[in-house]
Amino acid sequence: MNSESFLTDFHQVAAIGATPANGVERQAATPEDKEMRDWFVAFAEARGWSVRVDSIGNLFALVEWHPDADYVLVGSHLDSQPRGGRFDGAYGVIAALHAADRLAARVAAGEPAPKHNLAVVDWFNEEGGRFPPSIMGSSVFAGLMDEQEMLQVTDLAGVTVADALDAIGYRGTDERPTPVAYAEIHIEQGPILEREGIELGAVDHSWYTQKLDVEVLGEQSHTGATAMADRRDALVAASKVVVLVHDVTQDFEPESIVSSVGQLTLEPNSPIVVPRRVHLVADLRANRPEIVREARALLLERIAAVASEHDLTIDVRDFDVRPVQSFPEEGLELSEKVAAELGIGIRRINTMAGHDSVAMNRIVPALMMFIPSIDGVSHCEREFTSDEQMSVGVDALTEATWELLQGGLDREETGR
Amino acid sequence: MNSESFLTDFHQVAAIGATPANGVERQAATPEDKEMRDWFVAFAEARGWSVRVDSIGNLFALVEWHPDADYVLVGSHLDSQPRGGRFDGAYGVIAALHAADRLAARVAAGEPAPKHNLAVVDWFNEEGGRFPPSIMGSSVFAGLMDEQEMLQVTDLAGVTVADALDAIGYRGTDERPTPVAYAEIHIEQGPILEREGIELGAVDHSWYTQKLDVEVLGEQSHTGATAMADRRDALVAASKVVVLVHDVTQDFEPESIVSSVGQLTLEPNSPIVVPRRVHLVADLRANRPEIVREARALLLERIAAVASEHDLTIDVRDFDVRPVQSFPEEGLELSEKVAAELGIGIRRINTMAGHDSVAMNRIVPALMMFIPSIDGVSHCEREFTSDEQMSVGVDALTEATWELLQGGLDREETGR
Repeated sequence: MNSESFLTDFHQVAAIGATPANGVERQAATPEDKEMRDWFVAFAEARGWSVRVDSIGNLFALVEWHPDADYVLVGSHLDSQPRGGRFDGAYGVIAALHAADRLAARVAAGEPAPKHNLAVVDWFNEEGGRFPPSIMGSSVFAGLMDEQEMLQVTDLAGVTVADALDAIGYRGTDERPTPVAYAEIHIEQGPILEREGIELGAVDHSWYTQKLDVEVLGEQSHTGATAMADRRDALVAASKVVVLVHDVTQDFEPESIVSSVGQLTLEPNSPIVVPRRVHLVADLRANRPEIVREARALLLERIAAVASEHDLTIDVRDFDVRPVQSFPEEGLELSEKVAAELGIGIRRINTMAGHDSVAMNRIVPALMMFIPSIDGVSHCEREFTSDEQMSVGVDALTEATWELLQGGLDREETGR
Repeated sequence: MNSESFLTDFHQVAAIGATPANGVERQAATPEDKEMRDWFVAFAEARGWSVRVDSIGNLFALVEWHPDADYVLVGSHLDSQPRGGRFDGAYGVIAALHAADRLAARVAAGEPAPKHNLAVVDWFNEEGGRFPPSIMGSSVFAGLMDEQEMLQVTDLAGVTVADALDAIGYRGTDERPTPVAYAEIHIEQGPILEREGIELGAVDHSWYTQKLDVEVLGEQSHTGATAMADRRDALVAASKVVVLVHDVTQDFEPESIVSSVGQLTLEPNSPIVVPRRVHLVADLRANRPEIVREARALLLERIAAVASEHDLTIDVRDFDVRPVQSFPEEGLELSEKVAAELGIGIRRINTMAGHDSVAMNRIVPALMMFIPSIDGVSHCEREFTSDEQMSVGVDALTEATWELLQGGLDREETGR
């Protein structure tokens, strides 16, 4: 298939919110996110597709062959992390738009119309960098998060999701398309496909993930005048927690677990005051729940020892626990069939990252495919996938979507 | 002497900017700082003393006996740290106002007018929590910092010192009183006087201090999808730096050195992004320069090892180096004489903290006295000194100031 128009669009869109080092910055409901959405709407309208925006800002472009049929949803997200890469999310949405374009053309050229209608979707706020939690739009769509609560989430400047969506004109009132299946393609964000020289991954399950909300309560004092023995320094204790969270992965098999602290704030944050309070968020993910649970238990024990050593209080609270999600076997086989027909190499693979597909898989059969990420890096400016690798993915997504439109993952037909 | 009016004023003023746990929050040039200054001005005007405000916001109340005489300056600062204590700084200014009141009454009652005039001073921004560096007003007064540069320093919200002073109406144009000597009384902010049961400290020299500005440059990546081995996590490396800064004190004699990191910011500070950059400020202080220099050398070596281990860049820059300052022997003897006459216990003592007196000592003979700090704590809400301990200090300051007004530290008389 000819990928020229896809590649032209992809590289043109990469200029929106571009950063000096080849990345992008388009956090949810910012002017850059609006510009991405406006481009999506123009793409749909140029083809006569209708556009819907729901009440949490999810954006749909509808390719309809039957007035009353339900929809196969295909998409990803156009928002990015602060100083993120230009592939994460945007690739999947642009690929979905071009897959839809090809399939609309296929039917227009004489192929029989498929059983279902098609909706390309840009999910609101997948990244969660500005408005936590991540995967917000698809989780609200799937009934996993409460919409009213999410609309009241605020960013660090105190702006709510509702107001931010109003400000860019993307808080809608349209009916949501009723889904029968979901497909998504995304960069791997890991090193496996590149390392093994395989073009496509069929995602079989997501990792078990959870966060720990950690609050360290010490005592504020003078950095100059307080003897070391009299201090209860919240930052020293918090720093030890950060190192513990990092080092706990060494108790497990390599690549079976990742952990990190991405957010940390201290009070009062004055150069000559010993900090009284540190708040930080730790993130634990593994391919098996037992590993996360064991790491968590080790951390609780080690963090308690730090609290005792520094004579201060450390409160640890579990939140955002996301169990392992298995994608349906039928979808994996469907992806493998499509790859075989196109002559594309494919392997089954886990996803360590969360995705909109994981939320959608809770309500309809979902299929998720990966293309390689150079050096396995993402959420950064040097995130990279080649034009050829992207083009192979668009071809695979097009054919997988075609199968779904014929009912290839319908629950009644697969006996689920 | 009767301390009732001093204690009444002290406890009344402690209500300005009061925090729930008995502390105060009156950062420089905030509405609370303005309220303190307005109280100072009202105190002076009620007694017919003239008030001056200079161009960096230093506030003076003048008790004048001779039209052309120079001034003995006595004071401290009314600003506080965020959630600071009610004694640090404010005690010294209120004590100086009451000392001045007593001495004015003494002359009015028939004692011969002293040789010099008297100016009570509230130095602008001693704390530096909102506008670094600290000890700003007295350092500009003493010619140690550039006034135009300091007026352009901004807080975290981008407000300049100049605009903040204008906003509270305390950027003045008055001539600065010409100083001949300086006296200040302050809480110790350390445990020595309390531990030894001594009422007064005569400060003999200040500690050697310096700061290190540390920037850790790693690589931003996805907290979920990036294998541990592929990360260059700026926060993990920065956390190790914080622990190293703390632990380096263990290489030296107890209580000979203190160190800390009070300020730290990370980017992008998102829960699911591995941080790319951390900026932090470390503070090193010791009673001898060699100790700080040796600690600094050990830290540079150990920080380089962390950078190497995590394959990232750590830049370390020296700033705000403040050498040991010795207060004049004549002032120490003068304090000891006053204490003996009043029957107050006194010992010589170092100051680990910086003070306005350290800046003033660079241009005129300065005398600094300490009263005890319970548990040695300061820059926090539970900072405490008893009414009796404070009253003893006011008596000592009154008599020491009287000696200075007679010329007790004049350079020509002491042969300096």
